[in-house]
Amino acid sequence: MPSITNGRVLFAAAPEGYPEPGKHIVYDTSKTLDLETVPLNGGILIKTLELSIDPYMRGQMREAHIPSYMPAFPMGEPIYSLGIGVVLRSEHSDIKAGDHVTGLIPHQQYSVLKVVPPLRKIENPHHLPWSFALGVLGMPGQTAFMGWNEYSRAKKGETVFVSAGAGAVGSLVIQLAKMDGCKVIGSAGSEEKVRFMKECGADIAFNYKTTNTLEVLKKEGPIDIYWDNVGGETFDAALDAAASNARFIVCGTISTYNDPKGTPIYNMPKVFEKCLSINGFLYQPLEPKWRQQFAATIPPLVAAGKIKHKEDVYEGLDKVGGVILALQKGANKGKAMVHVADEV
Amino acid sequence: MPSITNGRVLFAAAPEGYPEPGKHIVYDTSKTLDLETVPLNGGILIKTLELSIDPYMRGQMREAHIPSYMPAFPMGEPIYSLGIGVVLRSEHSDIKAGDHVTGLIPHQQYSVLKVVPPLRKIENPHHLPWSFALGVLGMPGQTAFMGWNEYSRAKKGETVFVSAGAGAVGSLVIQLAKMDGCKVIGSAGSEEKVRFMKECGADIAFNYKTTNTLEVLKKEGPIDIYWDNVGGETFDAALDAAASNARFIVCGTISTYNDPKGTPIYNMPKVFEKCLSINGFLYQPLEPKWRQQFAATIPPLVAAGKIKHKEDVYEGLDKVGGVILALQKGANKGKAMVHVADEV
Repeated sequence: MPSITNGRVLFAAAPEGYPEPGKHIVYDTSKTLDLETVPLNGGILIKTLELSIDPYMRGQMREAHIPSYMPAFPMGEPIYSLGIGVVLRSEHSDIKAGDHVTGLIPHQQYSVLKVVPPLRKIENPHHLPWSFALGVLGMPGQTAFMGWNEYSRAKKGETVFVSAGAGAVGSLVIQLAKMDGCKVIGSAGSEEKVRFMKECGADIAFNYKTTNTLEVLKKEGPIDIYWDNVGGETFDAALDAAASNARFIVCGTISTYNDPKGTPIYNMPKVFEKCLSINGFLYQPLEPKWRQQFAATIPPLVAAGKIKHKEDVYEGLDKVGGVILALQKGANKGKAMVHVADEV
Repeated sequence: MPSITNGRVLFAAAPEGYPEPGKHIVYDTSKTLDLETVPLNGGILIKTLELSIDPYMRGQMREAHIPSYMPAFPMGEPIYSLGIGVVLRSEHSDIKAGDHVTGLIPHQQYSVLKVVPPLRKIENPHHLPWSFALGVLGMPGQTAFMGWNEYSRAKKGETVFVSAGAGAVGSLVIQLAKMDGCKVIGSAGSEEKVRFMKECGADIAFNYKTTNTLEVLKKEGPIDIYWDNVGGETFDAALDAAASNARFIVCGTISTYNDPKGTPIYNMPKVFEKCLSINGFLYQPLEPKWRQQFAATIPPLVAAGKIKHKEDVYEGLDKVGGVILALQKGANKGKAMVHVADEV
């Protein structure tokens, strides 16, 4: 079999503000690959099917010497993210051609990979679309489930505020809060997202671009739990509208990722005045503790159609740069992912 | 017996920035009192002996319509704070002349008080100076003990940073952290305070006015526990120098109390990047839980001379305004208090 083009998405330059497709993230078709002869060295050859595009990837687009919680993308090399691939060839004893794997997958059409964690074989017991494993059943869904159960200490009747409430994480948080009997306020940046938050059960859903967040929180609050996906001014408003002993769960601060100066918070004295607790968390360290309970709880509800979730799927690896930018600007309409190839 | 002058300290105006003696806090001698005939209405008449001056009192110097965790001082009336008085006359069944009481005491030489909590009779089983009940054995000492035990989750060998480490709270936190086998970094605003932090056992003690806080923390950290008494830039530096899973205990933010604009914090995204937990707390809600353990632990150590603490005592009720200002500016040299009168 002759060599075929292996399209790749390269990290070409570190952005200061928003990442621009073609400048910071570049699609490249200069490499080729022979699928039948490429050496596996004990690993596997996969065809990439689905790639997740997530807000935190912005943090990896930086110079390698700057420390952070995720490694910087290697300059000039393919970026990577959570994804799903189908195995074409394997030299690994537990994985055979036709199996599916998930983990951090390079943004290229075909990859030879070593099978080391977090890369692992993935099953699909409920026969759901593979893409669900990147959204409601994957990292975002698990993030919502784990953070809520670990930190919310939710009591029936409490008031919960969820920012980015139409996002992959936030929309499940809204549904978990409703299951726990809470009143839920959700904010997002478009009327379409507001509608989706209401479908998810939010009692109050508003567009922060046209409605003042603090005014809504003062009217509908005080808030007992704040699930923070955005940081910045919204976080400040939540501090102002917090009830005594409120719990803040900080899952991300997307409003700050593209602001090189940093976004100021002014209301931190409320933390002691109101005896607040604020917990930041990342997916990775919590995952082992909650894995079993998640698997027992959420996939059956999803299979039964009892959890609302939305995918925003773009076609083709060349779209990655544009999707990354759209997500940072809040232009996505559901869990953002790129469909790279069909299974056959 | 004729009427005698009853000197009082009045709240005369709400300051925007630093409170000025004579303008916002005014000493007044226009009232008189007859100690033998003033009606008690079932309460007690006390002579004020000692008054505690604390940083949080700044927050009570505000217009009454602004909500906060402590009530505003009533305009034109005497301010009040924690204090000790000796009972001159009593119509209360459990309290007799010669007993001592503690609680929120009006800033006047003599007061007729109802005996309702937090006012209560106080014993002195270790025969220590009464003033200790306002410092190391009182609210500041209990604040340090309760906050540390409730939130620090300290492990031997961890690195602890204490701001305002020479203060009434901070100096005990340093000693508790050392008892738990931690490495302790303390900051304060004078060379004399730096020396006192070293006497308390701080491994590293520095003057934040002459040494860059972030540089010290980066060199001696990362920090696992931050005890925050000051907020503002110091809090921001601590976020920057925090270890993963660090615990922040927010006891006060004195650097912000006199800044009407508010003090910006820029490093809040570190909260999720480093999985930090931040707990703010107030004395009152924690007190019932820890009262017994405090009484069993700290007074015996103080009586045995095993706890270092410092008082900064000013003579006379007319000094209150100046002491309040000095404390906000960090000019005190120990637990600030005003000695109003001797017992006899």
